Amino acid sequence: MSCDWDSQGRVDGDIDQQEMVPNKKSAVLVDGVVLNGPTTDAKTGEKFVEEACKLIMEEVVLKATDINEKVCEWQPPEQLKKLLDLEVRDTGESHDRLLKLCQDVIRFSVKTNHPRFFNQLYAGLDYYSLAARFMTEALNPSIYTYEVSPVFLLVEEAVLKKMIEFIGWKEGDGIFNPGGSVSNMYAMNLARYKYCPDIKEKGLFGLPRLTLFTSAECHYSMKKAASFLGIGTQNVCFVETDGRGKMIPEELEKQIWQAREEGTTPFLVCATSGTTVLGAFDPLDEIADICERHGLWLHVDASWGGSALMSRKHRRLLHGIHRADSVAWNPHKMLMAGIQCCALLVKDKSDLLKKCYSAKASYLFQQDKFYDVSYDTGDKSIQCSRRPDAFKFWMTWKALGTLGLEERVNRALALSSLREMEEGPEFWEKLHLVAPAIKERMMKKGSLMLGYQPHRGKVNFFRQVVISPQVSREDMDFLLDEIDLLGRDM
Amino acid sequence: MSCDWDSQGRVDGDIDQQEMVPNKKSAVLVDGVVLNGPTTDAKTGEKFVEEACKLIMEEVVLKATDINEKVCEWQPPEQLKKLLDLEVRDTGESHDRLLKLCQDVIRFSVKTNHPRFFNQLYAGLDYYSLAARFMTEALNPSIYTYEVSPVFLLVEEAVLKKMIEFIGWKEGDGIFNPGGSVSNMYAMNLARYKYCPDIKEKGLFGLPRLTLFTSAECHYSMKKAASFLGIGTQNVCFVETDGRGKMIPEELEKQIWQAREEGTTPFLVCATSGTTVLGAFDPLDEIADICERHGLWLHVDASWGGSALMSRKHRRLLHGIHRADSVAWNPHKMLMAGIQCCALLVKDKSDLLKKCYSAKASYLFQQDKFYDVSYDTGDKSIQCSRRPDAFKFWMTWKALGTLGLEERVNRALALSSLREMEEGPEFWEKLHLVAPAIKERMMKKGSLMLGYQPHRGKVNFFRQVVISPQVSREDMDFLLDEIDLLGRDM
Repeated sequence: MSCDWDSQGRVDGDIDQQEMVPNKKSAVLVDGVVLNGPTTDAKTGEKFVEEACKLIMEEVVLKATDINEKVCEWQPPEQLKKLLDLEVRDTGESHDRLLKLCQDVIRFSVKTNHPRFFNQLYAGLDYYSLAARFMTEALNPSIYTYEVSPVFLLVEEAVLKKMIEFIGWKEGDGIFNPGGSVSNMYAMNLARYKYCPDIKEKGLFGLPRLTLFTSAECHYSMKKAASFLGIGTQNVCFVETDGRGKMIPEELEKQIWQAREEGTTPFLVCATSGTTVLGAFDPLDEIADICERHGLWLHVDASWGGSALMSRKHRRLLHGIHRADSVAWNPHKMLMAGIQCCALLVKDKSDLLKKCYSAKASYLFQQDKFYDVSYDTGDKSIQCSRRPDAFKFWMTWKALGTLGLEERVNRALALSSLREMEEGPEFWEKLHLVAPAIKERMMKKGSLMLGYQPHRGKVNFFRQVVISPQVSREDMDFLLDEIDLLGRDM
Repeated sequence: MSCDWDSQGRVDGDIDQQEMVPNKKSAVLVDGVVLNGPTTDAKTGEKFVEEACKLIMEEVVLKATDINEKVCEWQPPEQLKKLLDLEVRDTGESHDRLLKLCQDVIRFSVKTNHPRFFNQLYAGLDYYSLAARFMTEALNPSIYTYEVSPVFLLVEEAVLKKMIEFIGWKEGDGIFNPGGSVSNMYAMNLARYKYCPDIKEKGLFGLPRLTLFTSAECHYSMKKAASFLGIGTQNVCFVETDGRGKMIPEELEKQIWQAREEGTTPFLVCATSGTTVLGAFDPLDEIADICERHGLWLHVDASWGGSALMSRKHRRLLHGIHRADSVAWNPHKMLMAGIQCCALLVKDKSDLLKKCYSAKASYLFQQDKFYDVSYDTGDKSIQCSRRPDAFKFWMTWKALGTLGLEERVNRALALSSLREMEEGPEFWEKLHLVAPAIKERMMKKGSLMLGYQPHRGKVNFFRQVVISPQVSREDMDFLLDEIDLLGRDM
């Protein structure tokens, strides 16, 4: 028999399918399957990867900085389904057809690299990170044990060490994980474990209600984490913020006292450095004082604002962060490491991550290995397979140096201050009334992307996120002009 | 002033740094930072990406199938630290230097694509998935809302729908997430929410102890999940298995009765389809009967074995899976989609995922958008940013067709049956005594990688995982010969 893989109606004449059919005389059959020789045609596969790479370079990488390209080519869901051939079938498709599919995927995808993509807390193209990401995709490592992932585990260690320095801790521990939300979950669970290690084995049953405190402007992952970890969203106490969006320390302390009076057990305060909507930085020093007085774990969700630590000019925004017990910091946002690149950093050096998370799987974390098994860091994780996310950030850091990263942060913050200079009452009034309608026109034109939302009873406003070093003053001017233009006839 | 980024001691003569310095006369300065013009030199960056791609093709992709290459070039941690230049510095490094670093990273990384990498539950190189991964890295999407990720959300929907068909459900829901461990957490939390929706808001305080049941051979993530979710590892009841590693249904029912007698509240049974160590498939039909009798959620951890559903010959191993309430299935394992590609699938169609996980962030999931917001599936997730993991699997499925995927599964299973044919008592006895020592020699020689471990009181044995279509009968013979050779003088 020949391999089914050969007879699936592949129509690409370029493929020499014969390469994959073992000589019938020498075929070793078990259970009807030919076992000798590989089944994939490496040459054909390699050629496909090369062609796809060429397409990616031309259509994504080289066009990333071209402001004449659309940010998106908008199609509503039902229409896009018709335009794309989404169905998978019994038989495979030819390489020509697959490349055409790739082209369509690129065409209808949002160009998050575009200088005029201001829609989320990430944007822009970092060439060094991208090269690193191509490399890890090709190598396909999973970083649980040193034997399987020697280089990437050492890189992670080096990057964590350096991030810990920027926080201002003498030592510490940490782990890259799949997102700021998950980092916050890690921290919440660590704080709970520190409060009562028995919870790992016994769970929360029979315990008094645990309560935690965070600002009313915190990321929504705090609620998700509380619900996922069995704490319950009702036990998240939201502390009032000032006009700028910063947690009011006096309100925090008041709420802690109140929670105690109600018979619950406070165990964690989560401050935010760079809130999602207003970009506010909670006053960490005053919050740390309160945590010390009450013996509470201080976690800082610096997923967004942590990168300001790289700037000597702006790191004062996070003054007091060295007093935190844990910090979430996502280099995939302002430092453009590519989604996802998120670290949870922990001050404790008593191996708390390992104690809290270990399950000691005997097939993975054997203790009689021939090397120092302290490098097998996988048991610190809630995951089993884990991606080498530190590596892409490391490559960018290597390429730009700390000073280059600092410059990125400085520029992003300087550009965002421009926006405030140019706003006027008439402009805002217009925006308040028409943001969703302008957004619709913007998407259909594909000229620009930024998000809108209401905020605490106020009507919709646009929330512009400035990250990419490809963004210039000209793009900021364009943004204002374009919004003006899109809304002119309303 | 010129941008700092220009003056960081970059030494690569090829880089025309002048491109990045705006004309001083027209410079717009805010806060000491030049704002007009981009700061990154796109041309130089693009060239770097091109050179890195060339290196990746030559050193990783083209060598992936070459059995004359080493599987790994072993260096102990302290030695490897010296060989790699891990430190990040204030100033950036030249492109030549960065490319040299990339070469070192490749050289000292384990070649998980190598036909003789049998170490983990993933292996081999799929060219179509790899091309898709390069594409998503370049596009850098995050899939929470349709507006930011239209194509990848539709692809996810199409792939989930197809996977649900293979499970045998008429309809269902699902989500790709960062791993089988996280899938199991999702399922545990969903089952708990279904049992008592109040837990989302109130937490587990004051509730009777919830208990769950899984086999003694289950993946270690069940313990991690129970601890993370506040249930506690003590409340995971491990059910005895038979000699082949399959859960004994009678033992399950006995334990459920016993748990009830002890005053705890059973809510979940987790069966395993393809255990991590022995590859055993729990008898799903009999377990489903028990779950029905007791009103318990049935989750099937088919992270490893789910791919057997693609094979008409082997899907009987999962007979009864259509009766599960949720299924974890990782195409990054036997179907080679690349780490990570993991789906949690849910039979319920009452939007349970959304009800259980939503936090309704107003900056992301606005309800007054101009398109059908049911496509904004991000609020079903515990994450905020999320990678488009379905896409790489979709590309492979498109390329090979269902029949091609089936062939992969059939061949992997046929090859693994070879192993059993050739084992003998003397061979095993040797292995039992010397597995860690042989592993050390194997790693240092770099000829082969497979894992070893003890199992339930028995001594260390090698655990060979067969996935890649590049693996042939010759590689299996090589494996036995090589182990024999490595251990000959012991």
